[in-house]
Amino acid sequence: MQAIRPLLHDIRDNRLLWLLALVPVVLIAEALKPEAHTLLFILSVLAIVPLAALLSHATESVAARTGDTIGGLLNATLGNLTELIIALTALAAGQYVLVKASIAGAIVTNTLFMLGVSFLLGGLKHRVQEYNRNNARLQAGLLFLATVALLIPSMLAEAESATPEFTQTLSLGLSLLLIASYALSLLFSLGTHREFFGSADHGEGGEPAWPMGLALATLAVVTVLVALVSEVFVESVQQAAVSFGMSAAFVGFIIVAIVGAAAEMASAFSAARKNRLDLSVGIALGSAAQIALFVAPVLVLVSYVVGPAPMDLQFWPGAVVMMLIAAMTAALVTNSGRSAWFVGVLVLMVYIVFAMTLYLLPPRGGQ
Amino acid sequence: MQAIRPLLHDIRDNRLLWLLALVPVVLIAEALKPEAHTLLFILSVLAIVPLAALLSHATESVAARTGDTIGGLLNATLGNLTELIIALTALAAGQYVLVKASIAGAIVTNTLFMLGVSFLLGGLKHRVQEYNRNNARLQAGLLFLATVALLIPSMLAEAESATPEFTQTLSLGLSLLLIASYALSLLFSLGTHREFFGSADHGEGGEPAWPMGLALATLAVVTVLVALVSEVFVESVQQAAVSFGMSAAFVGFIIVAIVGAAAEMASAFSAARKNRLDLSVGIALGSAAQIALFVAPVLVLVSYVVGPAPMDLQFWPGAVVMMLIAAMTAALVTNSGRSAWFVGVLVLMVYIVFAMTLYLLPPRGGQ
Amino acid sequence: MQAIRPLLHDIRDNRLLWLLALVPVVLIAEALKPEAHTLLFILSVLAIVPLAALLSHATESVAARTGDTIGGLLNATLGNLTELIIALTALAAGQYVLVKASIAGAIVTNTLFMLGVSFLLGGLKHRVQEYNRNNARLQAGLLFLATVALLIPSMLAEAESATPEFTQTLSLGLSLLLIASYALSLLFSLGTHREFFGSADHGEGGEPAWPMGLALATLAVVTVLVALVSEVFVESVQQAAVSFGMSAAFVGFIIVAIVGAAAEMASAFSAARKNRLDLSVGIALGSAAQIALFVAPVLVLVSYVVGPAPMDLQFWPGAVVMMLIAAMTAALVTNSGRSAWFVGVLVLMVYIVFAMTLYLLPPRGGQ
Repeated sequence: MQAIRPLLHDIRDNRLLWLLALVPVVLIAEALKPEAHTLLFILSVLAIVPLAALLSHATESVAARTGDTIGGLLNATLGNLTELIIALTALAAGQYVLVKASIAGAIVTNTLFMLGVSFLLGGLKHRVQEYNRNNARLQAGLLFLATVALLIPSMLAEAESATPEFTQTLSLGLSLLLIASYALSLLFSLGTHREFFGSADHGEGGEPAWPMGLALATLAVVTVLVALVSEVFVESVQQAAVSFGMSAAFVGFIIVAIVGAAAEMASAFSAARKNRLDLSVGIALGSAAQIALFVAPVLVLVSYVVGPAPMDLQFWPGAVVMMLIAAMTAALVTNSGRSAWFVGVLVLMVYIVFAMTLYLLPPRGGQ
Repeated sequence: MQAIRPLLHDIRDNRLLWLLALVPVVLIAEALKPEAHTLLFILSVLAIVPLAALLSHATESVAARTGDTIGGLLNATLGNLTELIIALTALAAGQYVLVKASIAGAIVTNTLFMLGVSFLLGGLKHRVQEYNRNNARLQAGLLFLATVALLIPSMLAEAESATPEFTQTLSLGLSLLLIASYALSLLFSLGTHREFFGSADHGEGGEPAWPMGLALATLAVVTVLVALVSEVFVESVQQAAVSFGMSAAFVGFIIVAIVGAAAEMASAFSAARKNRLDLSVGIALGSAAQIALFVAPVLVLVSYVVGPAPMDLQFWPGAVVMMLIAAMTAALVTNSGRSAWFVGVLVLMVYIVFAMTLYLLPPRGGQ
Repeated sequence: MQAIRPLLHDIRDNRLLWLLALVPVVLIAEALKPEAHTLLFILSVLAIVPLAALLSHATESVAARTGDTIGGLLNATLGNLTELIIALTALAAGQYVLVKASIAGAIVTNTLFMLGVSFLLGGLKHRVQEYNRNNARLQAGLLFLATVALLIPSMLAEAESATPEFTQTLSLGLSLLLIASYALSLLFSLGTHREFFGSADHGEGGEPAWPMGLALATLAVVTVLVALVSEVFVESVQQAAVSFGMSAAFVGFIIVAIVGAAAEMASAFSAARKNRLDLSVGIALGSAAQIALFVAPVLVLVSYVVGPAPMDLQFWPGAVVMMLIAAMTAALVTNSGRSAWFVGVLVLMVYIVFAMTLYLLPPRGGQ
């Protein structure tokens, strides 16, 4: 009890966290009334918000004791656990279109929306922000590699009428390449060249950091809760979308991706406002790179065991173009290592162009 | 009379300005012999040259009293008034293909030809030129955003057999987004962060700057004259092109764009030779960005009132590729903030590749 | 005899050079048993290795006396003589598909494989390597220009059903533009701005440099031998590939390109390990640029005299995409002027994605 006192203290002080009461409510409602999709959708969104806030504080506590970049990586890893669990559920049900849409949407949303809002929020509070370019460059390079890898099977399938066997074998090979690249990138950034990825201490100042034990325990427990609530959310979102009049492509790319990354966004936005843009950029691009180089290929490998048939890496051409533009935007924008509010506006506008297109797209177009 | 003495003094000293006598000639010839297309074409080109030179000096006078970047923005705004008037005339006549070709051509020509020749002329006189990267990066970022926005409707229309209603609604939404982005960019560069966009004073030296009143009056009057003569030019150029044996695509993209931007080019080239590359880059990229983010969307909005039917933002795929490559070239080349003559050659060669392709294209291909 | 003593000394000390004995063997075997394709293939690969090593040492000797960049250009020029001779042989036989595949493959392989392995090998020995960005930027800019030029005819041929006459005339015009750009780039880097392209002396230390006369004589003689052996290699490689079960696209793009550039690779890799990354980057990107801006257009011009019909610059769309991605990768990666081992991994992974795709491609797809 002594150990979790800082957590209880935070909950008492922060009214947002009172929404935590909705977590059991949504799980009970799902058990009792699984067909009330619109209600479950609203409840689950409201329940994810305080969980995301807790996750944010816990991650910042760990980050405060380990350095920004490693904290950012931890955050990206744990945040994407949610995405992975959601995708695995859909995979087991054979819903490959949904899996692919959520992968592509998560990459684009993390790269453009999370990065753009971080730059914008940080820039509204701080005139000019500087950050460590090394990490941004590494993540942008990884994203570029992943986009090239995902471009090839889709392009060849369009142009060459390649056989399904070819696409499947190629997807398996590309998945292994991407996982190997990701592992080597961790060896590089956490191992041989770790001192290039640390960031200057910004003195912090905000809320006091929790002790390591409490922070890690909270990370673990809250991650599980996020996963449980996210599942209710995914089950209800398709039906709720229909009743709100949104297209399936918009839901898969935008809504699922934003809610799925809510926890990481809370961390990234809060860090940006505290002038710790290293952490924000690390979370946004690191998370996008992790989904592209780790989550997506792992899903291909797992599909050989779990799903009704193996999944390949052939995406809808529009999704490939959006991922490519997102990776190029990230590379262009992080090149200088400096940011101001308008940089956030620019990145966000690219995202809004995509979101508006998907929102207006006739129903069958996005799949 | 006292007030315009510096203007008269310039006209006496500069023989090029004697061509101003052609301005009334071309307007009278148009009234008397509207069918003499080849003659009107040659007269109007010759009449635009001295107007462009006057505009150049007037703009430099304003720029000398307000700083390079603001002068550059002023120049781009007034220079593009010409483009806007030309496009509005074509819009009212329902010539949407010509409007779109002149928009795309103006973006590509300003980005590649005006920037390339500025680098080349400046580099032939000065060994290495440095310039403020902040403005170049802002304009290149805006251009990139606009290109992405123009890419989407064209790509979807090719690949998805989207309905005309979808394309029209999307074009309207994108137009509003682009105008909002442009307004925010002005707030950023002229408002909240203006000190990042000023440039070191280069001591000037050339011709003495006119007083503010005369400079502004000249800007206004000469802009109107350019618009009048440009209209004669546009009416005659299609017929004259046929008699010279050029394709319609070449005329729309290259000839209209170069003559339409003649005034700004005179300013940009003269600034480059005076080692004020900030001004040159600001005019070239600022003008391209303004056409993409302001002129094009305004034309879409106005088409709901003026034209026979609303205009959309769906371009010929070749035009989209050229705009995309132009934006990428600008981003790559201005990244270092330094220039030498060969940088100009490189940028210009990309333009010549496009111009040669359009020149050789079989007649119906370019539309 | 006195003059070539350093050469004989090297051969005695370096057991790899004993493979030189295979050079006469492969030429005699070709004359006696021209149908033993698999044997000739293996012999010719083994014979090229020591020739490449000799060429490497000779080039480094010249480079040591003239500066890294000029040495790099010399190396690229002489190394690409091999490619030119191979391509001319294929051209005379009317094998345009093979000529184009070897051009595209050489550009992609030099840009990605040679650069990537240089970064990796250098990075495994040196923690962080710095190099002169000016040369890397120039070559990346040239590559970008060439890729744009090669993109246009292929894109228009896909989209517009352009006539063969149009494609042929356009290819001729583009070839002249590319050669002019290349000549101007040499004037720039070796003439007007040569001091920007020299590199700091790294103190050397390795093997002693040969005298200029011996180095130049060795360069000349060994280049001829490489050409002779390469021809045997090309004649045998197609048949050998079939017996090893490789696709034609994989052989043209990957195998021919790697063996054809073996000599330059030996130089580039050895320079990278000696921390002379200026030389490595100069060889890799300079060689790719030279093939794109000099070898390819010269082949088009020569095809009017030598081949059965003129050759155009219309490539397989997949090859164009790969060249475009390779040029973008080079621009992104060399932008910082710094390297560590993981940068090499990233570049190499892009190459492996391409190689794997071509390897798996169904037989008729790659042409």
